[in-house]
Amino acid sequence: MINCAIIGYGYWGPNLVRNFSATPNATVKLVADLRQERLNLVKKNYPTVEVTTDIDSIWSDNSIDAVIIATPVFTHFELAQKALNSGKHVLLEKPMTDTVAHALELIDLANAKGKVLMVDHTFLYTSSVQKMKSLIDNGDIGKVKYFDSTRINLGLIQQDVNVLWDLAPHDISILDYLMPEKPHSVQATGVSHIHNGIENIAYLTVNYSSDFIAHFSCSWSSTVKIRTMLLGGDKKMVVFNDMEPTEKIKIYDTAHTVSSDEEKQRVLVDYRVGDVYIPKLEIKEALGGMAKDFMDAIEKGTTPLASWKSGLNTIRILEAAQISIKEKGREVVLS
Amino acid sequence: MINCAIIGYGYWGPNLVRNFSATPNATVKLVADLRQERLNLVKKNYPTVEVTTDIDSIWSDNSIDAVIIATPVFTHFELAQKALNSGKHVLLEKPMTDTVAHALELIDLANAKGKVLMVDHTFLYTSSVQKMKSLIDNGDIGKVKYFDSTRINLGLIQQDVNVLWDLAPHDISILDYLMPEKPHSVQATGVSHIHNGIENIAYLTVNYSSDFIAHFSCSWSSTVKIRTMLLGGDKKMVVFNDMEPTEKIKIYDTAHTVSSDEEKQRVLVDYRVGDVYIPKLEIKEALGGMAKDFMDAIEKGTTPLASWKSGLNTIRILEAAQISIKEKGREVVLS
Amino acid sequence: MINCAIIGYGYWGPNLVRNFSATPNATVKLVADLRQERLNLVKKNYPTVEVTTDIDSIWSDNSIDAVIIATPVFTHFELAQKALNSGKHVLLEKPMTDTVAHALELIDLANAKGKVLMVDHTFLYTSSVQKMKSLIDNGDIGKVKYFDSTRINLGLIQQDVNVLWDLAPHDISILDYLMPEKPHSVQATGVSHIHNGIENIAYLTVNYSSDFIAHFSCSWSSTVKIRTMLLGGDKKMVVFNDMEPTEKIKIYDTAHTVSSDEEKQRVLVDYRVGDVYIPKLEIKEALGGMAKDFMDAIEKGTTPLASWKSGLNTIRILEAAQISIKEKGREVVLS
Amino acid sequence: MINCAIIGYGYWGPNLVRNFSATPNATVKLVADLRQERLNLVKKNYPTVEVTTDIDSIWSDNSIDAVIIATPVFTHFELAQKALNSGKHVLLEKPMTDTVAHALELIDLANAKGKVLMVDHTFLYTSSVQKMKSLIDNGDIGKVKYFDSTRINLGLIQQDVNVLWDLAPHDISILDYLMPEKPHSVQATGVSHIHNGIENIAYLTVNYSSDFIAHFSCSWSSTVKIRTMLLGGDKKMVVFNDMEPTEKIKIYDTAHTVSSDEEKQRVLVDYRVGDVYIPKLEIKEALGGMAKDFMDAIEKGTTPLASWKSGLNTIRILEAAQISIKEKGREVVLS
Repeated sequence: MINCAIIGYGYWGPNLVRNFSATPNATVKLVADLRQERLNLVKKNYPTVEVTTDIDSIWSDNSIDAVIIATPVFTHFELAQKALNSGKHVLLEKPMTDTVAHALELIDLANAKGKVLMVDHTFLYTSSVQKMKSLIDNGDIGKVKYFDSTRINLGLIQQDVNVLWDLAPHDISILDYLMPEKPHSVQATGVSHIHNGIENIAYLTVNYSSDFIAHFSCSWSSTVKIRTMLLGGDKKMVVFNDMEPTEKIKIYDTAHTVSSDEEKQRVLVDYRVGDVYIPKLEIKEALGGMAKDFMDAIEKGTTPLASWKSGLNTIRILEAAQISIKEKGREVVLS
Repeated sequence: MINCAIIGYGYWGPNLVRNFSATPNATVKLVADLRQERLNLVKKNYPTVEVTTDIDSIWSDNSIDAVIIATPVFTHFELAQKALNSGKHVLLEKPMTDTVAHALELIDLANAKGKVLMVDHTFLYTSSVQKMKSLIDNGDIGKVKYFDSTRINLGLIQQDVNVLWDLAPHDISILDYLMPEKPHSVQATGVSHIHNGIENIAYLTVNYSSDFIAHFSCSWSSTVKIRTMLLGGDKKMVVFNDMEPTEKIKIYDTAHTVSSDEEKQRVLVDYRVGDVYIPKLEIKEALGGMAKDFMDAIEKGTTPLASWKSGLNTIRILEAAQISIKEKGREVVLS
Repeated sequence: MINCAIIGYGYWGPNLVRNFSATPNATVKLVADLRQERLNLVKKNYPTVEVTTDIDSIWSDNSIDAVIIATPVFTHFELAQKALNSGKHVLLEKPMTDTVAHALELIDLANAKGKVLMVDHTFLYTSSVQKMKSLIDNGDIGKVKYFDSTRINLGLIQQDVNVLWDLAPHDISILDYLMPEKPHSVQATGVSHIHNGIENIAYLTVNYSSDFIAHFSCSWSSTVKIRTMLLGGDKKMVVFNDMEPTEKIKIYDTAHTVSSDEEKQRVLVDYRVGDVYIPKLEIKEALGGMAKDFMDAIEKGTTPLASWKSGLNTIRILEAAQISIKEKGREVVLS
Repeated sequence: MINCAIIGYGYWGPNLVRNFSATPNATVKLVADLRQERLNLVKKNYPTVEVTTDIDSIWSDNSIDAVIIATPVFTHFELAQKALNSGKHVLLEKPMTDTVAHALELIDLANAKGKVLMVDHTFLYTSSVQKMKSLIDNGDIGKVKYFDSTRINLGLIQQDVNVLWDLAPHDISILDYLMPEKPHSVQATGVSHIHNGIENIAYLTVNYSSDFIAHFSCSWSSTVKIRTMLLGGDKKMVVFNDMEPTEKIKIYDTAHTVSSDEEKQRVLVDYRVGDVYIPKLEIKEALGGMAKDFMDAIEKGTTPLASWKSGLNTIRILEAAQISIKEKGREVVLS
């Protein structure tokens, strides 16, 4: 049995406690938060879980095997560093850290200490993303040409990070999971309606050495919640609409027949729009799969889907996007 | 009665003949096309309309008052120039011309000759766009913050112009119609899957001196046809879904209450999602409104919605986008 | 070439002229209507078609081979009788006649004269109904258990026939086409909000000797237009939503596993909701298929889908429903 | 504080425990069920709640003030009778009892004992039904003309009651709540695909002395889950689609202008389809409102929405429908 401490009991905290409690080889031993009123909530719903406002007491508590860090991103590095140095496995909420340098330092530390370091990219564990992955892996979708994600809603305009850092980690980590090719460069644009330099609407293009292209549209200023992802291959196109209660994944037959016509000086795309197929997806809570993956990584040494590599690749793109957006959309090549 | 000649009887030609035929003060006297088989179609459906493959015969035909040019964009300038020099009014299909310089030259010529020069931006005449315009003008929507358009479908990959020149004129002309503010700069990204330098997927951001922002997503490579426009104001948000048969315009109540909270180091947006309202829109053919507007401009000297100014503003953005996309997303300031 | 006369140029008339004009072996020679203003419309759009207000002049016109009767239902019998007696083939708009007795008399006459008698059950020629038919015939759907149709909209409340006679012929003829089994009895209920004995809302159940059941819901009093048909088999269920622009037919995997559990005193249906499949349907105008079927029946002696048998079976159910609805839902056994 | 015992911990049991636990003036003291494994679930999730398999021990337990009976319908009468005779308030799951006679006997007993007797018609407490009620009460909808409900899904085919007794109580209780007029008669049809006399598909018409009409369509044999209710008035029409996550209630402007036209021998309904309005509905759990209403009725003597009258009116219709369906749709007048 692996004893877990959860640091931070905000919006996501109750979901973490519930899912780790339901994971066979995990025990939620402790929840830490600076706010006593949040801890009171824990005690009410989970009387057997210990609570504390003294986060630093965790490091010397040898009964704690693993720490789940669900605090604001700017605190991730310091907390994870202390946890790893105390010999604990670490799960970080997304985004992994506030800078690539911090992520690299944590990765080195985790490797040196022989501890698991992973990131809660919950979406990788959804039936929808798993379905998209299998469509790519088994060749059904054909050669993948583009990825286009829209994630917009009314949101909390934050003081420390822009809308890309807040919303895009979901989509970037999905892209990273689906596409083995390393991205080449990014270009980002956006606007801050609060005029504090924190963009509440932003657009991101990710370029590849091949002709694959990815695009992300994020906003905190849309009354309408849209969660749509397009994945285009030369055999199939997938539309993932996460707002649909039961038809999240729709698969469209597609066939581009490119023929040249010199007289008309153009390439003709003779298309047919074919059948649509809506697969039955297993109904399960993705966060439970993530919790199990963390426990398995600790117990069995397996590599989790949402590994530190997934976390690192995601913030590499975010950090470059940050530079691009401040330099008016200049292409920033990823190192 | 105004005698019209239509040059070019391709995909859009039958719609032009039908709508100008149904316009009270217009007569379709002649259709010209280089392809005899297209002209045979005209004769079959409109036995009283004259046809010719000799386009240059139009210029000296004094019975022709107005010329509608529905040919590939690279021919627009020369044909329009000849028509204006022959003393004829000119309607150009979108986009107006292939360069801003050509557009400016035509505008000067039209002014010198005292002839009407307009562009077939059909969408301006739809009930949906008219509804959005009135929501802005009467203040219902509040201060407008963003415009976001997605126009993607399987399309003909063209040899001469990219997907922005093909699809975005619709959306850019709508933006130009709705927003009186002059755009400041553009940034564009994209990819060519045909590897001929002609982008089949492209993204465009248009920036303003104020904090208004516009974004366009265009693709010829989507099996699924999407036509969605978001228009966000601080009182209402409008979603225009042109694929909806009867509920094209949905209006959402919105209210952003921005309050600061120093302790939490963030700006809190306390939002409520309110009622939705789907107005009844008049069912009418937009092209008929455009045809009437052209005739009225000729007869009464009125300024049409889709004036040369609308055409010019649209290609100003397209030309700058072309530069930006080739310079890897560099911000191009509009002159 | 078969010369056709169309009697009645109301709402449906222009569609008939257009489709018969486009049918290779048909010529629309004459349109007859009592209203000169309707005939003026014919002359404007089809200058070569003859028109007349003298319907009786048709019978002695030997150049007319076939007559299409698109007049109010109470006139069908007399007009069709005259046409057949004049040696002409007859197509009747739906419903075929106002009584079963009239239908039988026309059928006998057509057989005696050796002429084609058919009914314009246009829906049988749609891609959607053809798809449902093939799903039944090839066994995909399994044993068919039920058919449930809803056809409601705001409508013209008629003085002579109730909403079932007006709307249900579409659905009853589809049912008759899909299901070879002879129906056993009908039960109908309804209400007349005009209080003239003409029901504007009505419900119809059709029972079979087997355990198959069909139900029809019709209304002229719904602001919302609904056109939904459910077809349930033990392998698949089909939902036909005719208001959907592109996804009219959805096919659902279904599997009923009925297991008994004596202790619980109930039959347990362990179901799984499986995949959904939306086949691509050919886009074509059904009325054109009907017109061709009529011409083929005349020229080649083929039996049309919408034969007099389809017409007769449909009004057998309507006539029995009429009796049932007036006798407060009493079961009326079909003779 | 009112101490409650819940009898029956099946599908609905956990919802009852959770909601009564969250009701301020209620305490869930005891859960009784014949199945020890179900009681184990209670202990796991609610360690402080007592459990028992000895249902009869409840009657003599003076600490229990109120009993919630969530057992099969054929046990309702006996259990409720014992509870009332023991001086306890009673809430029955729907349908109230298996016969009208049993319901009347319980009502008399409750009145004699001065105890609350109510029925869990949860839907009356939903925001959607409350919205429909207010639209009727404030006159927005105008004179109500019809009510049409479809409730179909794959379901458990039960041995004791047919699909109407299982599914229609929801809709009939809503109808009873919305319409003050007393229904006059019922007609029902249906089929049993299991051939055990228990209909798995059934249709029900309810007639009124006025020209109002109600219709219910219920099925356990539809792979597709449909939950649609139409409520038509002469000013507005409401469509309640309970499968919609956020747009459950849509309100359509409607205007019937009935004009007579002697020449055409028909009544003309000149309609316009107007605006659509989707009100924001409060998100709340209806069952919580029902629990509170029960507690208030006990403490404050208020009359709950889901009173015994609502329960009685509902099974009056069900019992008559049962007779009608067995007598082949004969109209059964309600006493």
